[in-house]
Amino acid sequence: MSADILTELRRHIRTVPDWPVPGVQFRDITPLLAEPAAFKLMIDALAARYEAMRPELIAGLEARGFIIGAALAYRLGVGFMPIRKKGKLPHECIEESYLLEYGSATVEAHVDALRPGQRVVLVDDLIASGGTMGAGARLLQRLGAELLECAAVIDLPALRGSQQLREAGLPVFALLEYALDE
Amino acid sequence: MSADILTELRRHIRTVPDWPVPGVQFRDITPLLAEPAAFKLMIDALAARYEAMRPELIAGLEARGFIIGAALAYRLGVGFMPIRKKGKLPHECIEESYLLEYGSATVEAHVDALRPGQRVVLVDDLIASGGTMGAGARLLQRLGAELLECAAVIDLPALRGSQQLREAGLPVFALLEYALDE
Repeated sequence: MSADILTELRRHIRTVPDWPVPGVQFRDITPLLAEPAAFKLMIDALAARYEAMRPELIAGLEARGFIIGAALAYRLGVGFMPIRKKGKLPHECIEESYLLEYGSATVEAHVDALRPGQRVVLVDDLIASGGTMGAGARLLQRLGAELLECAAVIDLPALRGSQQLREAGLPVFALLEYALDE
Repeated sequence: MSADILTELRRHIRTVPDWPVPGVQFRDITPLLAEPAAFKLMIDALAARYEAMRPELIAGLEARGFIIGAALAYRLGVGFMPIRKKGKLPHECIEESYLLEYGSATVEAHVDALRPGQRVVLVDDLIASGGTMGAGARLLQRLGAELLECAAVIDLPALRGSQQLREAGLPVFALLEYALDE
């Protein structure tokens, strides 16, 4: 990936201090999405990586993963599969839960969302603790997907989420890395 | 719009009876999204309508509107703006509420999400009562957008949501119409 592209993407990401809770530096991609050239640059950078892997389906994690995943699926000419928070999908589902700092959360996928053996890239905007991405990956694997990669725009490596996903045997990629105090 | 295209889109939309509550026929677009040719057909059909109107920004309503809106924005080479459920956007917001059958719901937009005068198409998957679309439109207008159209894949005209939006002076378009008992 060209350093120029990454610098340009980074220039449009806003850091919001102390959101959603004190001490967290939230990385806000809405200015990047709103800027036509930057939005296109982000999607094309992901497409450049995944074109050669010949995915057949892009799975996106609710909700920001829908934005990035759907545009990427359109760009690659493949289908899109939403992985949603529990209770949002109307057909028969399977679910996976993951731990949060306090409590847990559950994501769901339709049982007929893909064909066994289908080549899938899983997309979200950001990897923090990696809980959502890991649960999404387990859903895809239970459905019989060939999971090509877990892809994000931003990784926060200090939180060790991406490292834990890799230790669980999952291939992980992010366009950008942010340090916690950056 | 060619009748062939609309028939093809309709073929991939699944009706789930009695979801989320008894008596409702839910129109599930996930099979359409998963099918590469149908997903592309849907986005290209919307792009064919909006290309000539020269939008500068596509606004999408959380969460299914993100999928359609983001792919459409990418296709048109413009930016994307998420309108979210209350409490999800990190920067300063304005909000609009709308009535549900029981209670109300609130959507939000960042105060700096667009430039006054910017040409915007508002996108969601489906118009039922029209509450979400109307609230999204009011947000865009308060931010100074030139709202070109409220666009959906599916309209349920029997629920009169699209009619009420039009009576409120908003231009409304949907690719498909479904009768309630269809």
